[in-house]
Amino acid sequence: MADSVLVAGASGYAGALAARLIDRHPHFELAAVTSRSDVGTRLDELYPHHRVSKVLEELDLDTHADVDAAIVAYPHGAAAPLVAALRERGVKVVDLSADFRLHDVATYEQWYVPHAHPELINTARYGLPELHRESLHGADLVAGPGCFPTAALLALAPLARAGVITDAVIDAKTGVSGAGRAATAKTHFVSVDENVAAYGVGHHRHMPEIDQELARLGAEITPVFTPHLLPLDQGELVSCYVTTDRAIDQDSLAELYADAYADEPFIELVDRPPGVRDVRETNLCRIQVHADERTGKAFVFAAIDNLWKGTASQAVQSLNLMVGRPEVEGVEP
Amino acid sequence: MADSVLVAGASGYAGALAARLIDRHPHFELAAVTSRSDVGTRLDELYPHHRVSKVLEELDLDTHADVDAAIVAYPHGAAAPLVAALRERGVKVVDLSADFRLHDVATYEQWYVPHAHPELINTARYGLPELHRESLHGADLVAGPGCFPTAALLALAPLARAGVITDAVIDAKTGVSGAGRAATAKTHFVSVDENVAAYGVGHHRHMPEIDQELARLGAEITPVFTPHLLPLDQGELVSCYVTTDRAIDQDSLAELYADAYADEPFIELVDRPPGVRDVRETNLCRIQVHADERTGKAFVFAAIDNLWKGTASQAVQSLNLMVGRPEVEGVEP
Amino acid sequence: MADSVLVAGASGYAGALAARLIDRHPHFELAAVTSRSDVGTRLDELYPHHRVSKVLEELDLDTHADVDAAIVAYPHGAAAPLVAALRERGVKVVDLSADFRLHDVATYEQWYVPHAHPELINTARYGLPELHRESLHGADLVAGPGCFPTAALLALAPLARAGVITDAVIDAKTGVSGAGRAATAKTHFVSVDENVAAYGVGHHRHMPEIDQELARLGAEITPVFTPHLLPLDQGELVSCYVTTDRAIDQDSLAELYADAYADEPFIELVDRPPGVRDVRETNLCRIQVHADERTGKAFVFAAIDNLWKGTASQAVQSLNLMVGRPEVEGVEP
Amino acid sequence: MADSVLVAGASGYAGALAARLIDRHPHFELAAVTSRSDVGTRLDELYPHHRVSKVLEELDLDTHADVDAAIVAYPHGAAAPLVAALRERGVKVVDLSADFRLHDVATYEQWYVPHAHPELINTARYGLPELHRESLHGADLVAGPGCFPTAALLALAPLARAGVITDAVIDAKTGVSGAGRAATAKTHFVSVDENVAAYGVGHHRHMPEIDQELARLGAEITPVFTPHLLPLDQGELVSCYVTTDRAIDQDSLAELYADAYADEPFIELVDRPPGVRDVRETNLCRIQVHADERTGKAFVFAAIDNLWKGTASQAVQSLNLMVGRPEVEGVEP
Repeated sequence: MADSVLVAGASGYAGALAARLIDRHPHFELAAVTSRSDVGTRLDELYPHHRVSKVLEELDLDTHADVDAAIVAYPHGAAAPLVAALRERGVKVVDLSADFRLHDVATYEQWYVPHAHPELINTARYGLPELHRESLHGADLVAGPGCFPTAALLALAPLARAGVITDAVIDAKTGVSGAGRAATAKTHFVSVDENVAAYGVGHHRHMPEIDQELARLGAEITPVFTPHLLPLDQGELVSCYVTTDRAIDQDSLAELYADAYADEPFIELVDRPPGVRDVRETNLCRIQVHADERTGKAFVFAAIDNLWKGTASQAVQSLNLMVGRPEVEGVEP
Repeated sequence: MADSVLVAGASGYAGALAARLIDRHPHFELAAVTSRSDVGTRLDELYPHHRVSKVLEELDLDTHADVDAAIVAYPHGAAAPLVAALRERGVKVVDLSADFRLHDVATYEQWYVPHAHPELINTARYGLPELHRESLHGADLVAGPGCFPTAALLALAPLARAGVITDAVIDAKTGVSGAGRAATAKTHFVSVDENVAAYGVGHHRHMPEIDQELARLGAEITPVFTPHLLPLDQGELVSCYVTTDRAIDQDSLAELYADAYADEPFIELVDRPPGVRDVRETNLCRIQVHADERTGKAFVFAAIDNLWKGTASQAVQSLNLMVGRPEVEGVEP
Repeated sequence: MADSVLVAGASGYAGALAARLIDRHPHFELAAVTSRSDVGTRLDELYPHHRVSKVLEELDLDTHADVDAAIVAYPHGAAAPLVAALRERGVKVVDLSADFRLHDVATYEQWYVPHAHPELINTARYGLPELHRESLHGADLVAGPGCFPTAALLALAPLARAGVITDAVIDAKTGVSGAGRAATAKTHFVSVDENVAAYGVGHHRHMPEIDQELARLGAEITPVFTPHLLPLDQGELVSCYVTTDRAIDQDSLAELYADAYADEPFIELVDRPPGVRDVRETNLCRIQVHADERTGKAFVFAAIDNLWKGTASQAVQSLNLMVGRPEVEGVEP
Repeated sequence: MADSVLVAGASGYAGALAARLIDRHPHFELAAVTSRSDVGTRLDELYPHHRVSKVLEELDLDTHADVDAAIVAYPHGAAAPLVAALRERGVKVVDLSADFRLHDVATYEQWYVPHAHPELINTARYGLPELHRESLHGADLVAGPGCFPTAALLALAPLARAGVITDAVIDAKTGVSGAGRAATAKTHFVSVDENVAAYGVGHHRHMPEIDQELARLGAEITPVFTPHLLPLDQGELVSCYVTTDRAIDQDSLAELYADAYADEPFIELVDRPPGVRDVRETNLCRIQVHADERTGKAFVFAAIDNLWKGTASQAVQSLNLMVGRPEVEGVEP
């Protein structure tokens, strides 16, 4: 029998896509979509291309919590109370916000806001199946990774686990959907068109998440991480330049990644630079490695769709594992 | 009296823009525009927005070399013989190709093709006025820098001259006009649109030029340099992550750049990330420096218009110096 | 048992997408993909996002014609001989070229080239299922409509069948993929970006096709038809301004279209202007009608994806009918 | 001696560009820039590429009205009171809003809002110099035309004056800057990118303006006018399909337009479809005429830059005439 799934915060880009993926999922049933801003609007009025005809409702835990699982697409800070309420009612949750990504409350509160439910942090699993699959089987609460950490960690994990990284520069490029649906000066077409610029220089909130997870994989480093905004809607590329404690030639590097990822259904190892177009609207991460003879560094390029693998489809991938379904169900490339 | 200027190779993006800038220049007179591919076509049929009505002619040195100066916009390899012929006739030349950028013939021939006129290499000055202004006064032959080296060297020069750089990563982003006017799979709209990918990974021809010039400025390093192609027409951003041999705080870093560039008419020092839109269709380079506390590195972001400061308007800036005109004449922001 | 399908000309945009749709179709089996230009290349090297790993082969009728059906994606003129050869061997064919769209040989030859197989013209059905469904059931040869005629005819058919049209202006806007994969000055990113212009003014090859089919539906008119090239990759919008022989109010107009299309699985009638983004990568046509009080005209706006409903997915829709499968199979929105 | 000019409402796209054009004008002096939303901000922080370093001030008529002229870039409704106050103080005004474009108060109030200063309407001249040059010489109050009317009227005027138009369809395409600087769902990058759709269908505010001015030129018609939003920042194309009361062949049509416009400094008559890129950042209008043999209609395509000729540079063109300067001064192509 189908598992029923609530998508809370379905009027934003990530929530709306999650609703679509659940709606078309062969096993899940989309129970309801809720919104804090567009109650009463049909979702397909806001997002015709998702073709989900459900009407956005105001959240009412008495009715909406009567589901098997929920995907919460609220901003950080606002997510934690809802996640706590859902967990209290026994609902499995994938939270797309940052609220349960960082293990250290102080670090969270330094980069974000005071945490309303620190007691739940340790119950959350980090929802990057390629790196932490076992911990997701049957999990009750999963923190969906940030889009940049998703790409950066998939790019660096094999080297991090090999224990060879001494330094890394992660230069990231993202499409505008990563900035969300809010209409701001930053997301105005005229600001973005024919433009490219860095942002969040030196203080982007995905930094502590990347640091934490790299350390967990074995790389106790503080990498450079700088995102850039590009004139495209969906897609994210991370260009990683890694200093290692020993020389690694192309064959060894390729082998390291093949060992790690050859059997992964959502990772494509390629021998030319991946473009974000190659993975658009998929749950794939496409990776090229290059042992650079000139500089002695290892280069890793990883492309994802920030809304899919970077957020919503990865949430479904995790949800599949949480409830015992095939990992690729409903998010096949 | 006006100096007459020939633009050879005016059917390409760089040559056409050079022709426009010369055509509107208060001092120079556009003597003729020549082309190897579009003889008989009015330049404003190919490039309406430049509004240069001259007809593209087949090059004839007997008539076309009767000028005071020339801007040569030929591909590498093809440029050297024409430059030699023009120099022989006493014509001052700015060459936009790579043929006279590299001082070492062997290095040139390793990255490009056999050099037809190695004897001229040492007579050429490197046309980056902000760094080598004195050598351009009255010069007869100037090699216009590559667009990426222009941005990268302006970004790194103050640190290089301070002798503090031990390592650097230069992640570059460029619009499609940098790939030239040739219609290829790479420049097809559908290939570029909604996409971003690295290219020339580990083997881009601007590498030896950057290496050579950084060394000349005092930084004997082999930096990472990786360009990426973006869905925009004009504009280039270099994001430089520099490892230094000592700690440099924000004030010192800002002061270093202010000392170097405060009086430069074409450099804008800003305290937020420069966008390529900010310098579109200008000879400006807009630079932000950031002393990164997390990583201890110095970040430098520099934005230019690859066709203007990266190529054609910088050529005019050099030409002004070569013939004793005010440096900013005809290329004021 | 699966029907095997050959896609000939699979290295172009339309053929490659057809190959993908067949490859993922629950009933069809992709027998082979052939190409005249990229033999030996894996299709997913050219089109990673289609994820079809088959290698492009040189066409060999002895082996490749041993299929149940074929989709031919050759240029006009080149298609007819291949279609004839396949038909001779009993293969059902959907031809994506113009070779079998026009019923009158003289008209075809006036707009295109001499026709190699005029004897087959009358055996071909026009593959616009919403308008000619019955004739496609079990058909052996189907001419896939042009992308503009697809949108224009779906937009105008209800009014044409009502016999009320006296004049019409069809102003069309299309993305660059409609111009095909060939790299030309017209498809160069720098030509298209930040631009819009009409093309084919007064002499576009889709004109006689639109005229013929409108007449067949009951409107013996010569409409204005002017396409414009836009800076986007996929998507096509036709804006139709129709003069009618009687006044039609909004309710009547909406009812006319609801009667015609309410049950159509691939037509969405909407009450606000359709955007091409709404139908991207679908077989849908999204239509708004507006009875204009100021001018007394009927406006119809119709949006499709030129590569999908305008070409490849519509071909699969037709193929489903030709072999007795459910019409929506494999091309569900 | 220089005429001093105030730009009120300089934080919007049109006002900011007007400020730049005045700032660089050889005769005018930019006295002050005012804003209702960004007081205290330097204009070059909002618009680096305009390079106007003046700080936006709160409007204070006591000081700011002490100028020779003003360009008012306020929204409709808000403009009229300021225009009245400035006129009362003897300041010549170009108003970029709709407040003084429509001669009939009732029509204005039907399409816009109650008019605060109807007594001034008849003192305003319509600022389209190519059509009404004489009336602008020495004028005190000029209403800058809407961007769509500018392009549509330049496109249709020769035919209108010839008295031959019986019907017309004007299908317009515009970049996003036409929607202004306000960040809305409509101007969000993700809404516009890869999209095109009509808007204002049947009720766009430029309709009564086009009707009024066409009538004034001799065409008492109600044309279709439908704008479409395109993924580009600046640029506007109108495609006009004109029904005439007599047959007009290509030569006659071309001659009609040459007679009207051959000496106009800002009109380019061309024989292929004009693209908006051809006129980007200029005060030019580029026009092609096509006598269509198939349909008997006259087609006219006209491209402008909506912010330049469509708004700000045309205002400067008018201002030149108002104060007796050469018409092209400061806005030469």
